Amino acid sequence: MKRGLFIGRFQPLHKGHIEIIKKILREVDELIIGIGSAQESHTLENPFTAGERELMILRSLAEEKIDLSRVHIIPIPDVNNNSVWVSHVLSLSPPFHVVYSGNPLVCRLFREAGFTVRKPPMVKRKEYWGTEIRERMVKNKNWREFVPKAVAEVIEEIEGIARLRELAQTDYPL
Amino acid sequence: MKRGLFIGRFQPLHKGHIEIIKKILREVDELIIGIGSAQESHTLENPFTAGERELMILRSLAEEKIDLSRVHIIPIPDVNNNSVWVSHVLSLSPPFHVVYSGNPLVCRLFREAGFTVRKPPMVKRKEYWGTEIRERMVKNKNWREFVPKAVAEVIEEIEGIARLRELAQTDYPL
Amino acid sequence: MKRGLFIGRFQPLHKGHIEIIKKILREVDELIIGIGSAQESHTLENPFTAGERELMILRSLAEEKIDLSRVHIIPIPDVNNNSVWVSHVLSLSPPFHVVYSGNPLVCRLFREAGFTVRKPPMVKRKEYWGTEIRERMVKNKNWREFVPKAVAEVIEEIEGIARLRELAQTDYPL
Amino acid sequence: MKRGLFIGRFQPLHKGHIEIIKKILREVDELIIGIGSAQESHTLENPFTAGERELMILRSLAEEKIDLSRVHIIPIPDVNNNSVWVSHVLSLSPPFHVVYSGNPLVCRLFREAGFTVRKPPMVKRKEYWGTEIRERMVKNKNWREFVPKAVAEVIEEIEGIARLRELAQTDYPL
Amino acid sequence: MKRGLFIGRFQPLHKGHIEIIKKILREVDELIIGIGSAQESHTLENPFTAGERELMILRSLAEEKIDLSRVHIIPIPDVNNNSVWVSHVLSLSPPFHVVYSGNPLVCRLFREAGFTVRKPPMVKRKEYWGTEIRERMVKNKNWREFVPKAVAEVIEEIEGIARLRELAQTDYPL
Amino acid sequence: MKRGLFIGRFQPLHKGHIEIIKKILREVDELIIGIGSAQESHTLENPFTAGERELMILRSLAEEKIDLSRVHIIPIPDVNNNSVWVSHVLSLSPPFHVVYSGNPLVCRLFREAGFTVRKPPMVKRKEYWGTEIRERMVKNKNWREFVPKAVAEVIEEIEGIARLRELAQTDYPL
Repeated sequence: MKRGLFIGRFQPLHKGHIEIIKKILREVDELIIGIGSAQESHTLENPFTAGERELMILRSLAEEKIDLSRVHIIPIPDVNNNSVWVSHVLSLSPPFHVVYSGNPLVCRLFREAGFTVRKPPMVKRKEYWGTEIRERMVKNKNWREFVPKAVAEVIEEIEGIARLRELAQTDYPL
Repeated sequence: MKRGLFIGRFQPLHKGHIEIIKKILREVDELIIGIGSAQESHTLENPFTAGERELMILRSLAEEKIDLSRVHIIPIPDVNNNSVWVSHVLSLSPPFHVVYSGNPLVCRLFREAGFTVRKPPMVKRKEYWGTEIRERMVKNKNWREFVPKAVAEVIEEIEGIARLRELAQTDYPL
Repeated sequence: MKRGLFIGRFQPLHKGHIEIIKKILREVDELIIGIGSAQESHTLENPFTAGERELMILRSLAEEKIDLSRVHIIPIPDVNNNSVWVSHVLSLSPPFHVVYSGNPLVCRLFREAGFTVRKPPMVKRKEYWGTEIRERMVKNKNWREFVPKAVAEVIEEIEGIARLRELAQTDYPL
Repeated sequence: MKRGLFIGRFQPLHKGHIEIIKKILREVDELIIGIGSAQESHTLENPFTAGERELMILRSLAEEKIDLSRVHIIPIPDVNNNSVWVSHVLSLSPPFHVVYSGNPLVCRLFREAGFTVRKPPMVKRKEYWGTEIRERMVKNKNWREFVPKAVAEVIEEIEGIARLRELAQTDYPL
Repeated sequence: MKRGLFIGRFQPLHKGHIEIIKKILREVDELIIGIGSAQESHTLENPFTAGERELMILRSLAEEKIDLSRVHIIPIPDVNNNSVWVSHVLSLSPPFHVVYSGNPLVCRLFREAGFTVRKPPMVKRKEYWGTEIRERMVKNKNWREFVPKAVAEVIEEIEGIARLRELAQTDYPL
Repeated sequence: MKRGLFIGRFQPLHKGHIEIIKKILREVDELIIGIGSAQESHTLENPFTAGERELMILRSLAEEKIDLSRVHIIPIPDVNNNSVWVSHVLSLSPPFHVVYSGNPLVCRLFREAGFTVRKPPMVKRKEYWGTEIRERMVKNKNWREFVPKAVAEVIEEIEGIARLRELAQTDYPL
């Protein structure tokens, strides 16, 4: 049994993530999708709650007919101590041995803990990038084509665009 | 879309839980299974990590041929403040409106927050009770028949019985 | 300017507290009423939130025609470290120099920090005791005569008795 | 009974705040003044402790002859999770239904929780702004005219100007 | 280079600890003495602060002419999550490979993390036991002969006996 | 008995620190070396764990033949509340009365708590500065001459340069 871990913030899940997930699933038996910064929500950088992101992910995987018994979706809150972060992830997740990440800190921490670390398969289009998508949401530019249909539905259901736009307003000085 | 929440500690998941889950799934479209006290592990009361419990649950649901696109498995760490606990659960979980619980505190907190609360369907056998099962594990009495086959396999894989027995040893006075 | 501190959990505020507060106000210019264990609520020991307790106190003081410009009501959450507790209290409260407490830990901590510590004036009746009053609430025995009228009103407004009774129910084994 | 919430950091309380408070008190029966970021102190942005700010507020309200039985002053420490922030505030405060805030995040969070949110009445002068007042304190420019007399007295009593100036010194490289 | 870890609460350090430390120092090049529950103090179970305990240990080792360049004294606060406890200890301590402990939980956690765990050498006398010594302190019975001379001096300097006796007083009911 | 406190982050310990430590040891009987931001590691600003830094310090002091019975090395995690920081340090450390620091916040907090605060003796060379040394490590420029030999050995042993360089890599956009 070979299990791999792929961590992202998924703010929101986009088609680039789906491509990566499909490719990794060809290399491992089971995949753990870690929802990073799970405690964050309602900011421009992290507009969606961990629960909303889990819903986006499960629905999109089902939409893509991915075998759900091979995927674990695990919210992972931040800890303010890099030295214990790996064992924090380990305690929240089923056992795994390969980690897919392009983040230097994540790579370093898992490598020091003796894990195999691989760069996730590259995805080319710059629109497949959370910052870009959130900006398009705020500015009322097209964003729907870059995310799975299920994600757009969830964002509609939770009125996510209105949330992002309200958060983007200038602060009122007190 | 009607979603329900069912919270347990699942130390470990047993056949009573499976019965309850199946019954609730006849009443709702989607079920959120909350893994309570997610930060606890390696004690006699809470021997298994959140990740180990997630693995037990996902495998057992697959074994039972339950439609996995209808079930969300969400680890829920405790917070030391009852007043914020409901919104803590809400932030980790997809939206829901019905809560299944027999715990008076859980019932009260969700009721004050305006949720419909239902007692989960009763399960008769006293062996379908975590405390009983953990005691049987420590005392080397039969426990396998009370849990799904997948749970027994996971406990084997993580050497869970050895862990429980070592934890049960008398402390050495310093 | 002489300020004194009096800390209690006020679960709920009762007539014994009011007597003590009035007596202390004869000895100091201003009184700080610290609401201890402010983060606790919805348990049999600590049924009411910090906000509900603040409301009970402010209303009862007004009812008693106590000069409100002489009283500071300050919620004080617990910290899990006795060594920093005094400075935690100091940071939440206006400056003070006398502490009224009968709790050995509180007395010790303030004494080591160089404060004058006095036993609060004794109150005789055993009904003037939180545990007794909460038990009477659960058992449907008379409790109203032991608390200020304003406290009974607040408890009514927040349906506090129903809360306590639900919390007192036996747990349902899962 | 109609209660409103008004949250600020009050670093320090200034005459603009007092104007707003008076105006809100014409619209509600009782006002909860939430002292935000209560755990912060001894920085250039947040020089005063929660307790010092409470003292400034209570004294200034008394000075203005505002009926103190209609005002609740509640310190509110930050939580690192926007999703639970509203219920955190609710647990620390007497019940309320209207929120006065111009901060987009505060507005959004309370709106999602079903509260009525209103922009606080505008105050024109740019000196009625905490950043401006703190800068004047550091630079030895006039600041007293922009705060209530009671605030200036408290700052004197706690030697607040010396604190701010020491904090403003350049760091010494180690 | 072989480093070993020995964790205790040292409430207070006694002659039994010193014997154990000397024996372990014959087996390893360097010893890390972990001060457990470092955040605890001012209770009957944990009367002394981490800093007071460090002072007792360093002075006693110097008194015993133990080579201080071979010993690391490290305070270790508790974490509320057994799964991350080992990496928490690892981050606070120089690298080590052998752990000396008789506590079943500590043994289990380090064993699962791949460490060699040894029972510390046995010490016979029942007086070499923290609970016994603290009781003797409270009851004014002889305790000095069971601790190093340096420990008795530190306890004198910090007025530790008065602290313990005040903490042992019956609580005053509010 | 006169004890002094000197706090730094020691990322890493350099020869400037050693000079300061030697000078302070001429003014006090015992010195407490506080390892600040003890919970930080694996970032460009704070690459080394508290345990690694303790090892660097103890070895370097031994190398310099400093009397180790006069020095206490104490890791000090940050707390998110300046008002309790002084008592947090006091609880982790043996008692002291003089503080050596050039940091305005540290100076202010200890002064308000009644401590004598002194600027540490100046060290001239700009290379004796953590930022400069870490940059040299990343850029493969000479850094060894600015730190004690023992520090270079520890960094070698833990492969610290590889860690820093990996952390310095550009993030991979997801």
